[in-house]
Parts: sequence; structure tokens; C-alpha cells
Amino acid sequence: MKLALREGRKGLGRTSPNPAVGAVIVSKNGKEVLGRGWHHKAGHPHAEIEAIADAKAKFPRRSLAGTTIFVTLEPCSTSGKTGACTDAILEAKFGRVVIGTLDPNPDHAGAAVRILAKTGIDVSVGVCEMECRELIRFFAKHITTGKPYVIAKSAITLDGRTTLTKARGQWISGPESREDVQKLRAECDAVLIGGETARADNPSLTLRGKHAVGREQPYRFVLTAIKELPDDLNLFTDKFADRTEVFHGKSLSRVLTTLGKRGITSVLLESGGRLFAHGIAKKLIDEVVIYQAPIIGGGGKRLMQVDDIIADLENVRVTKSGVDSRIQGTIR
Amino acid sequence: MKLALREGRKGLGRTSPNPAVGAVIVSKNGKEVLGRGWHHKAGHPHAEIEAIADAKAKFPRRSLAGTTIFVTLEPCSTSGKTGACTDAILEAKFGRVVIGTLDPNPDHAGAAVRILAKTGIDVSVGVCEMECRELIRFFAKHITTGKPYVIAKSAITLDGRTTLTKARGQWISGPESREDVQKLRAECDAVLIGGETARADNPSLTLRGKHAVGREQPYRFVLTAIKELPDDLNLFTDKFADRTEVFHGKSLSRVLTTLGKRGITSVLLESGGRLFAHGIAKKLIDEVVIYQAPIIGGGGKRLMQVDDIIADLENVRVTKSGVDSRIQGTIR
Repeated sequence: MKLALREGRKGLGRTSPNPAVGAVIVSKNGKEVLGRGWHHKAGHPHAEIEAIADAKAKFPRRSLAGTTIFVTLEPCSTSGKTGACTDAILEAKFGRVVIGTLDPNPDHAGAAVRILAKTGIDVSVGVCEMECRELIRFFAKHITTGKPYVIAKSAITLDGRTTLTKARGQWISGPESREDVQKLRAECDAVLIGGETARADNPSLTLRGKHAVGREQPYRFVLTAIKELPDDLNLFTDKFADRTEVFHGKSLSRVLTTLGKRGITSVLLESGGRLFAHGIAKKLIDEVVIYQAPIIGGGGKRLMQVDDIIADLENVRVTKSGVDSRIQGTIR
Repeated sequence: MKLALREGRKGLGRTSPNPAVGAVIVSKNGKEVLGRGWHHKAGHPHAEIEAIADAKAKFPRRSLAGTTIFVTLEPCSTSGKTGACTDAILEAKFGRVVIGTLDPNPDHAGAAVRILAKTGIDVSVGVCEMECRELIRFFAKHITTGKPYVIAKSAITLDGRTTLTKARGQWISGPESREDVQKLRAECDAVLIGGETARADNPSLTLRGKHAVGREQPYRFVLTAIKELPDDLNLFTDKFADRTEVFHGKSLSRVLTTLGKRGITSVLLESGGRLFAHGIAKKLIDEVVIYQAPIIGGGGKRLMQVDDIIADLENVRVTKSGVDSRIQGTIR
């Protein structure tokens, strides 16, 4: 399943509105990997089909009958743009199907398991479940609530400031953290900022380097009060200008609902403190990624400008990012 | 030297105003540890003498001639309350002396090395130097500046608040972090808080459990404006009341100078945000230990209440402390 997860992760940022899924086919004795596959893009073959094709290409004379397929997400059992994966699995005569996590869509959850088990195939569910769920968290949030999964990222000092002094310049976090933001951005369908950030920083919010390869530029949304934004912002003038959209005078909640309806499953909130605090207070944020520089103090802007708002993080992962700490967690 | 460091650390919080020092004697072929020692208390034998005595007790018939002694700090070369360690080293006829770091006292630095080297003993300096220096950082600051080494500790949320809401109660950090504070406290000569903390929290600042064993209760100093403190505070009524002292209307800088003159080499600042920020702004803090809970937001009190003060941390170590992060670093 770890191998299947690795396959699946290749699809992050490419498969929306579908989830990223990986599959691996292993020989009967469990010693040989026969095929690997991942879902590349909505409308393209699912991971199981890719893995079966890979195995057939590598071992054209070998039957898959009796072998085991590991798949990070419960296979689909209804025909959409592609045939039902359960049919392909039955056709290949797998002896065992190991599933990371059930389909988060309550209408489909367990359907494939029932179909497969009824035919006598050995089906296991819940292997590396946490990691498999994490892989599809954007899809799961969207399919169950209609709203996108929101990751709020921020770079702050040890005491939560989002600016330094003039003398210290713009960057709180180091180059490793800024590179990591590129990866986050590449995995999300859209980036959202506030009008204040658009005016003050004039950001491009583009993908750069290897993160841009094989991925579309995420949509760039600006949430602003009625006040107009300058026409010459990078967001309006660069080659991705058609991926920029401004929402005037709408609440974050309403905008997220609108984006969800359009099939946007994930939003990276790269705003300043005001929108961040609002998102936390209104419980609109699912996850945070905070880059914390080893600096005490800073300028006048803070991540949380308002008192008495509290959000607890769960599944917290603290890792080093250059000299910064990278703190990732979901909001309880 | 790692073994000598381990010996030396046993003395932390016990040897003031002397430094914690460890020594290990190793056989000529480097394969056998013959003796270990650490400095227990000012006025008691130094680590080298302890290690020699240990070796003689364990191997009464064996000569130490030609063996190697590792000592975390350059041996003393002048007779104080105990004889000069250089004399004891020469008498034992060691073949090699490995020194972690030179005496930080500029009047003594290198003196023992010269004395020993002149007699033809092989002397090395600077093995595990960073760790050996860290072991004596209180002593080094005090001997070179006359002021104590100041560690400021604080428990904060991810965005730097030192309080939560009423409903969430008093404790930001978890039990592991509070236990760790006990260890910090036990290693320092004194704890210092502001009048505000004394009034609001009525803390005891005592050592508890294993940390109290073999150690004196650190002095408890309260820095307050002219306003009187209530007589019934724990600091004034518990069995360590004679270890409490209040400084009225004096600056932190002046108090630290006074404490240094009294031979206090280390102070743990356990104040609230006001004194913390003042200490950072006035560059009176040498090191910080911050326990950061996985919480965004909180109550109205902040670690740094003033804008545009910046302190950079160096030698940063981030470790897990239960669900909290423990961030330790020196102020650049």
C-alpha cells in the first residue's frame, strides 16, 4: 500500500475534481510487483486500469488471475467517463483486493466492496487508512459538503507576526519554505488572497520550476471589499490573467460555496492576517501550514489580530524547513 | 568526551558559582574507562580529582601514568579552595590531556594548557567544543560580564499568545512541557518574575519531584513597580519564603547586575509578556525556551506586546514536548 500511495501522490494537483489514486499489482506470493498505476487526470483511466495495463505491458504472457491489487481508494463501481473499475478487477480475476479507504461519497461507500466480495474475492479495507484518506482529502471534503478543502498557509515569526521591520525586508521565511509553498500551490486547484495582499504585495501566485510541470496554473481568486483593485497588478497582466478572478464584497463562506459549485475541490488561502483570522473564526479552514521563522517579534501585522478566537490543531506535523519550522495540522 | 559531558551534566544546578565539569580517564590503548568524575558543588573536589580518585578506587594497583584524561573544561592552574588540578594531573603522570574548551575567564584561558604542554604532555583542546561550552554557559557569562546568564521561558500559542480564554483555563502547554520547566528551574540559580505574574498567578516556583533531589531551591525574585505585593502570596508564606526577594522599582538591567555581584550565575525569567519583551528589547536575555502549543489564537495577552522589536535566534533546537513544540535558541 505504501507503493500504491507513492503512485497516487504523483496525481496530486492533476486530477481535480477527481481524487488522486494509486494502485499496485503484486504476485500471488507477494514478492513481485507486476504493475503500478496512478490516475493522471479526470476523464483519463483510473489507477486500477493503469496498473492492469502496466502489468500487461510488462508481463504480456502472464495472467493476473489470483494476484493481488492494492488500491488507495475503493474502486468505482459505476461507469462514468471510463468503465467501472470493479468490472476490470473481476475480468482480471484478481485473488485479492486491498483497499486503503472506502469511497467518501456516502452514496458509493462500500458498493465496490460488496460487489467484489459477493464474487468470492478476498477484499480487505483500511490498510494505511490515514495516509490514504489524506491523499483524497480535497475530494472527500468537496463530495460530502460541496465546498472546497481550504488550506491556509502563513509565514510568521515565533510570536505570530506576519511582517518584519522595513530594514529586514519582505521575507520572514527562508528559501526552503518558499519552495515548499510552490509545492502546496501546485497541489491545489486555486489560490485565494485578500484585496489587501493583492495591493500590498502584488503577487503572481504562479507555479515555478518543477512544480509547474504537467499542472495547470491554479485559479487566482481575490476577495476584496467594494474598492477597486489597480489594473496593473501582476494577476491581471501576466500570461495567466484569464486564471484570475475578483470577488467584490462577498463573504469568504459564500465565495467558497460558489467555487465548490464550479468543481473546485481545494483552495490555498495565502491571505494576510485579516482573512486568515476570519476563516478561523468562521470555521472555514480545514488545515493550516505555518512556516515559523526563528525570530521573536517583528512588524505591526499579526496572524491573529483579534482576541479570544481559538482553534486547536490535530494531526500536527512539525518538520524542519531550512531554519524555519513547518507546522502542518488540521483544524479540530 | 561524550562520557565526560555526561558526567559533567550531573552537576547542572548544583555547582554554582562554579561551572559544571566532567572528566573521564581512559587507558593508554583507549579501550578501557578507568575513572569518571564530576564536580558536585563549589568548594568540593573538581571533576579531575574525582575522576582520579574513582580510578584509584577501582584499580588500586594500577598506575595512571601514560593514560588519557578527558575533561570538559580546561583544568584550573591556581589553588583555590582545592589544589590546582594541573598539579594533580602532573602528579598522576597522564600521557595525554584532552580538553573540551578553554577556561572562559580571560585571565586563566590557556594557562593550564601552557603549564601542561611545557612538561611534554600531549594536550588537545576543542573536542566537542560546542557542547562543552554549553555546559558552562552560565559560568562563562558571569565570569566575563559579571551578570547572570538569563534564560527566558514562555508557553505560547502558535501565534504568540500567553493566555487562552477563561473557558480554556490556565495551561497553554501540556504536562510534558511543564515537567521540562521543572528541569530548567532546577538548573538555574534563580527564578525571576514580574509583580504582575506574582499577583495574577500566585506561583510557588518550587522544584518538585526528582528535580529537587540534591539541589537547593532556586532564589525567587520578583521585579515590581512601587506597588506593594499581597503578603499572603505563596512566595512569602511557603517553607522557602527566605529564598524570596522583591525588587521594587528597579530596572531589570540593574537587578541583574546586583544578582551577578552576589554570585548568581543564571536566572530563569518566568515572567509574562511585558518583562519578556523588555528583556528582549534591552538585550538582557541570552537564551529562550519556548513551549508552543498546537493552538491558533487565544486570549488577550501576547508574548511581544510591542511592535518593531526583533530578536533572531541561533543554535535553534526544535523538539517535541508532548503535543507542544519546544523551541530553544540563543539570542544573536
